[in-house]
Amino acid sequence: MTIAQALDALAARLGDRLGRSPSDLALHGANEAHFPAMPPDAVAYPQDTAEVAAIVGICAAHGCPVVAWGAGTSLEGHALPVKGGVTVDFSRMNRLIEVRPEDMLAVVQPGLTREALNTDLRATGLFFPVDPGANASLGGMAATRASGTTAVRYGTMRDNVLALEVVLADGRVIRTGSAARKSSSGYDLTGLFVGSEGTLGLITELTLRLQGQPEAVASAVCGFAEMAAAVETVIATIQSGIPMARIEFLDRAATAAVNAYSQAGLPEQPHLLVEFHGSDAAVAEQSARFGEIAADLGGEDFRWATRPEERNALWKMRHNAYYACLALRPGARAIITDVCVPISALAAAVEETAADIAASSIEGPILGHVGDGNFHAILLVDPGSASDHAEAARLAGRMAERALRLGGTVTGEHGIGMGKIPYMPAEHGAAWEVMGSLKAALDPQGILNPGKVVPQ
Amino acid sequence: MTIAQALDALAARLGDRLGRSPSDLALHGANEAHFPAMPPDAVAYPQDTAEVAAIVGICAAHGCPVVAWGAGTSLEGHALPVKGGVTVDFSRMNRLIEVRPEDMLAVVQPGLTREALNTDLRATGLFFPVDPGANASLGGMAATRASGTTAVRYGTMRDNVLALEVVLADGRVIRTGSAARKSSSGYDLTGLFVGSEGTLGLITELTLRLQGQPEAVASAVCGFAEMAAAVETVIATIQSGIPMARIEFLDRAATAAVNAYSQAGLPEQPHLLVEFHGSDAAVAEQSARFGEIAADLGGEDFRWATRPEERNALWKMRHNAYYACLALRPGARAIITDVCVPISALAAAVEETAADIAASSIEGPILGHVGDGNFHAILLVDPGSASDHAEAARLAGRMAERALRLGGTVTGEHGIGMGKIPYMPAEHGAAWEVMGSLKAALDPQGILNPGKVVPQ
Repeated sequence: MTIAQALDALAARLGDRLGRSPSDLALHGANEAHFPAMPPDAVAYPQDTAEVAAIVGICAAHGCPVVAWGAGTSLEGHALPVKGGVTVDFSRMNRLIEVRPEDMLAVVQPGLTREALNTDLRATGLFFPVDPGANASLGGMAATRASGTTAVRYGTMRDNVLALEVVLADGRVIRTGSAARKSSSGYDLTGLFVGSEGTLGLITELTLRLQGQPEAVASAVCGFAEMAAAVETVIATIQSGIPMARIEFLDRAATAAVNAYSQAGLPEQPHLLVEFHGSDAAVAEQSARFGEIAADLGGEDFRWATRPEERNALWKMRHNAYYACLALRPGARAIITDVCVPISALAAAVEETAADIAASSIEGPILGHVGDGNFHAILLVDPGSASDHAEAARLAGRMAERALRLGGTVTGEHGIGMGKIPYMPAEHGAAWEVMGSLKAALDPQGILNPGKVVPQ
Repeated sequence: MTIAQALDALAARLGDRLGRSPSDLALHGANEAHFPAMPPDAVAYPQDTAEVAAIVGICAAHGCPVVAWGAGTSLEGHALPVKGGVTVDFSRMNRLIEVRPEDMLAVVQPGLTREALNTDLRATGLFFPVDPGANASLGGMAATRASGTTAVRYGTMRDNVLALEVVLADGRVIRTGSAARKSSSGYDLTGLFVGSEGTLGLITELTLRLQGQPEAVASAVCGFAEMAAAVETVIATIQSGIPMARIEFLDRAATAAVNAYSQAGLPEQPHLLVEFHGSDAAVAEQSARFGEIAADLGGEDFRWATRPEERNALWKMRHNAYYACLALRPGARAIITDVCVPISALAAAVEETAADIAASSIEGPILGHVGDGNFHAILLVDPGSASDHAEAARLAGRMAERALRLGGTVTGEHGIGMGKIPYMPAEHGAAWEVMGSLKAALDPQGILNPGKVVPQ
């Protein structure tokens, strides 16, 4: 049982769709975050589910690790093959299989990206709402339980995946869920695979809930003299029951970053970015009520974007905010944090984090999906500086501990990957061992994305 | 290892909170549906989580089955102790532990009922939306992944349970989830226990999402000459993006039943019952748009209920519809069906079912949560008539097969229990074996609600 034997068998099955060139291995050993490169032994490019099952079957027979790869946009090094083996790249399984407008769902292959899906959906009046910013693959988004700017209204991948086809560690192919909108028929296997980061099975097909394009959309940017007032505005808006489609926060440093990167031209102070979806009348009412709440709490310099091109520019600016933060310090890489806390603890969590970063030796703009209680500090480090890394690790650790102390989680949307696994015992206690028992039940050899999610 | 030894140890631990009287055993061996009575060997009444853990630990040591009991309102005999053993009655663990208005959540013990929770919440301006009709316990609702009339707007228990405390089969106590609104931190254990029907662990505490009481509410009843027009109205309303809080269907026979039972005074034809929640302006707009859609498709005799007492009467009538159907045939019991299909298949599913029942020898009013594609035929049988039972079983089997053929599920909200387990292989295929593997990992002795959910 060796990886080499598995590669021989895979080469015989896949021919030139088993990549072993240095560039291929380097590409699939890299990551968007700060983790050291770690190339796989080979990259498989399956064309259909049967081929995925065959790949996993061969790897199972030889005890060879198998790591799924979507678009490579993960921020926690989820797809780094820490024990080598085969990376399964789903880029050739990227078809939109079916759109069912009456059922408001789409069936897709895992390599399809969310932007490609939404482009394909344009003529239908429907869209897929989950929006993590990056043009991630839908399989990868399911595997990390991704969310993003619209989760406050439309939920995360947990809420928007209706059904899956999954290849298990022994090569069996199962279907979970159905096209019905709800079910009480047994354990929620769909929910178990969503967020399992490729450790329980490889997702080969997804049935996704779609939403109707809203009749009207209004977006706005609004500045605040103090971070606390911005956060209070978020809490008051939620409490008042105004159905926001998006509510995002940028602190002063993040605002400066998007000004420099996207020529946003915003006053250099904390900002909220909001969006409302609905009928013309509903959006007008929601916008007006939000405007009153924000103004009462000191919001100023409102800029409403009602034309599509203004809105697109606004959200493109937001989606590029990570790159804008990186550009604050040329050559920097980022240690990215992703805490999510109960709304009642949001102000304390953001303020304590900001004070911690201000007192540190590195920069760390803060931004986030504050309607969910989820925010990120983008901790900028010189890749070659051990002291930068140590300082960022210290700050990230304090953020994680603070989130847990306040009743939250160390990862709201990015997942565990390489970066968050040290916090699992503190977050989950004995429940982490239960995750390990489930992993052992479905992947007793431990060949699926070893080193991730569960106790090792 | 015998049940008798377990009972001795439990009696020593619990004293008179281990019930063994004939009336206690009879109560916990009964069910709301048509299944034969099946009393447990004893009934334990724990007062706190530690006591539940002790009970399960004792039972594990002696290989004694353990079955959780909430309010006894299950419609599929979930809590029938098919291998005897101890029923754990949570009626003394029925406290509302905490309400956190800023976080819009409540922490409750599993024996608290949904009506008691909502009574306790009245002064807060918040409510718990999941509404299965019966005054079920919240632990039981989580265990069966219950939903009901409001799922079309607020989701099912899957969407409204944020966190759990669970006693595992070996007596360990774990916590899943957190008070944060979302998380990507590992396997979704909360989602795994929700809907597991007491086979993976005993829920001892729940953290529930609450909703703000809507500023305005409008309800209406509307008749249709033909069932098809009512179902088309549902589909058109969903397609148009009108955010319904409830949309319910009663066929002609169910309408006759509620007329007789609740003096509803409706014309004897199929009806839709709808409700809208939101701001004054939003509810007015939604009501008007629904009214136009329904009128276009032949809806008539609209009755709007805007005063709270009118609305309460309307939904009390709906909630009593099951008892109203039973009363159509004095002395009858019901075999209850619970299919859920994709919306595109709803018209076909309802019409084929109605035709099947019309051609049969028994009565079977149809009603349901049609906004989710979920409907029930209440198949009325004389408890002593073997031919009635056979006819109902034949009809229920055809409904289940039809739902699966149309891409749906055999149970939208009631769960598997005793009645739906024969359909599991057809619905889930190899995924049912995966459920069995998960069960074996967490309950290797099979002491938790044996005979339910997974392959035996």
